[in-house]
Amino acid sequence: MRTEFHQQLDALNADLARMCEMAGEAMQRATLGLLTVDLEAAEQVLTDLESLARLRRDVDHAALSVLARQAPVASDLRAVVAAVHITSDAARMGGLAAHVARIVRRRHPQSAIPDDVVGQFSEMGSLAVDLADDAASVIVDGDPVRASRIRDDDEAMNEMHRRLFGAVMSPEWTHGVPAAVDLVLLGRFYERFADHAVAIAARVLFRSTGRTSLDPDPEIPNPQGGRAG
Amino acid sequence: MRTEFHQQLDALNADLARMCEMAGEAMQRATLGLLTVDLEAAEQVLTDLESLARLRRDVDHAALSVLARQAPVASDLRAVVAAVHITSDAARMGGLAAHVARIVRRRHPQSAIPDDVVGQFSEMGSLAVDLADDAASVIVDGDPVRASRIRDDDEAMNEMHRRLFGAVMSPEWTHGVPAAVDLVLLGRFYERFADHAVAIAARVLFRSTGRTSLDPDPEIPNPQGGRAG
Repeated sequence: MRTEFHQQLDALNADLARMCEMAGEAMQRATLGLLTVDLEAAEQVLTDLESLARLRRDVDHAALSVLARQAPVASDLRAVVAAVHITSDAARMGGLAAHVARIVRRRHPQSAIPDDVVGQFSEMGSLAVDLADDAASVIVDGDPVRASRIRDDDEAMNEMHRRLFGAVMSPEWTHGVPAAVDLVLLGRFYERFADHAVAIAARVLFRSTGRTSLDPDPEIPNPQGGRAG
Repeated sequence: MRTEFHQQLDALNADLARMCEMAGEAMQRATLGLLTVDLEAAEQVLTDLESLARLRRDVDHAALSVLARQAPVASDLRAVVAAVHITSDAARMGGLAAHVARIVRRRHPQSAIPDDVVGQFSEMGSLAVDLADDAASVIVDGDPVRASRIRDDDEAMNEMHRRLFGAVMSPEWTHGVPAAVDLVLLGRFYERFADHAVAIAARVLFRSTGRTSLDPDPEIPNPQGGRAG
């Protein structure tokens, strides 16, 4: 039988997973707005994210309440502290989708991206949705297959980001400065989105073992290793 | 007389303040590298940040240990949970200084910024150092004067970022695409650095009152208000 604490933790994790899914839905809609120059989709992203912010507040409150009432220790304590971090990561993923939506809005009725990179952004959008859904799944059941897919998808995202950056910085770039700037920012938003999914998977690993081989934020130097430096 | 818990909390807060100062020192050195095209300064930033990452790990460990041993409640609990968040913010500030240093390294021996924006980046660097030092001070004694200066300096940083972005995106921009892209990324790194200082001040407010009028991350939509949306 599950203890009261574990029931509360399950509820917390279900909400965290829902936050990841909502962030994924936001990025999916933002990408749709980007690819089809759809202002309504972009505006919808910004509206939808209010629910994510509300859920975040509820989950933060619930985590504090579990800590206060149950005073968990060891891996139970780490699981709740991981939850506290994960709300930040998932909310930030939503914030990055909002950034994409805002660039769509700023450029409308023009497209924010040249035709020749539509395919790349379509793929980055798909990767982002998979990453968010896999993060949700890892939170709920710690599925190692999904965790390793997060790592692979993050690598794929980094590679696409590098190629995009290379294209923009090359002398062959013909679309001018504003398009270059938007593309680099957009690429960075997708790449950071992936980083937060990686961070979530790392925190789930940490909650069960107290150690992690995944770097919680690959952009922050970590003497334990990882891609940072 | 201070209880054992409060002595541990004081030690935790002293370490958090030190993390902020280290992030400020990193951004100061990265800015020096940027303004004087100094590769050695840039490399030093990346080395110095290893100490920040180590301190972060120690502080995260200490926070878990305080939660497990003392099982604090109410404002004491919020103070420790705030500490858990603040380590992320301060580490991320260091990560943003590292990004600036990496752009300096990538462009060396060329300067990453055109001469006509050297003054602006010098000012953004000063603002960043003040923000980090004020965040450290707010953590230790909750100084409201410093907290409100953080808000003002963040506004000033946002304004400089907007002007920089406007200059790059205007038809009068003559420095080409790679310089434009670097400038926009650099501007964003300083602006995000300021956002994290604001987030730290918001978390300190939250730890004492359970409420905050400052948005913990101004880039994440928050139905309670703040600059996001």
